[in-house]
Amino acid sequence: MGVMDASVRGVFFTTSAGGAVPAVLLNLPSGKTLPIYIGLWEAISINNALNDDLLPRPGTHDLFVAMLESYGISVKRLTIDDLRDGVFYATLASVRGDGEESLDCRPSDGIAIALRARAPIAIEEMVAEKAGVEEEDLPEFVDLSTYLS
Amino acid sequence: MGVMDASVRGVFFTTSAGGAVPAVLLNLPSGKTLPIYIGLWEAISINNALNDDLLPRPGTHDLFVAMLESYGISVKRLTIDDLRDGVFYATLASVRGDGEESLDCRPSDGIAIALRARAPIAIEEMVAEKAGVEEEDLPEFVDLSTYLS
Repeated sequence: MGVMDASVRGVFFTTSAGGAVPAVLLNLPSGKTLPIYIGLWEAISINNALNDDLLPRPGTHDLFVAMLESYGISVKRLTIDDLRDGVFYATLASVRGDGEESLDCRPSDGIAIALRARAPIAIEEMVAEKAGVEEEDLPEFVDLSTYLS
Repeated sequence: MGVMDASVRGVFFTTSAGGAVPAVLLNLPSGKTLPIYIGLWEAISINNALNDDLLPRPGTHDLFVAMLESYGISVKRLTIDDLRDGVFYATLASVRGDGEESLDCRPSDGIAIALRARAPIAIEEMVAEKAGVEEEDLPEFVDLSTYLS
């Protein structure tokens, strides 16, 4: 199985019987969408990255990327590579000189970091097949900014 | 002016007319306490670090420190070095081989990272003098765990 590139459509809230849940939606090359439910704090951070919103003070992911840059470390790729028991897993690959490192991370952190570092996001085919949904099968989503503004 | 070492007493909520506000309390060598109001997400992260609570998935600050360690970067010191218009500023100093870096950060991020990396926390004397308070002058604080449990 290989990986496919994905792009971040945006951060949304889905309203369910239990309340509003933030999610990041990824566009897959197949035309399907991969929704991943995430925490509100991470949703705001991803939304800021998408909108190039600079906070008056550096957020945690801003600090993260600034620290990597100060040591000449590049984020190479985020790969969302597993889905087990409803939990998505991801690996953040980075490089410094000829040394590569790969670290387990939550997809929400990885997306917030990859967007800031302008690094590509990839999805394992198995994950895309299991969790990718057709547009008409997506739950109803409201743009995060509707809630934040 | 120099710096003095500080230790983290814990994370608390203060109840005010406007509602409950999370704060981290630092013990100063003078016996005074430095309260810094922080976000709830950062408060939970600091609380987890203090209690060595391992999350089922790495939190953002866990990933941050894991990434630094994977590249042989050590956190040298967090210094809370300024207080302007009610906003605390901090600098996170780190080292790799003979290369040192210093980055501007929010004290809440810096404390969450320093605790995980077992790095010392220092306060500029000017900040301690401006914002350090005697025990009896502290607002009423409730332990964060009271709210979380």
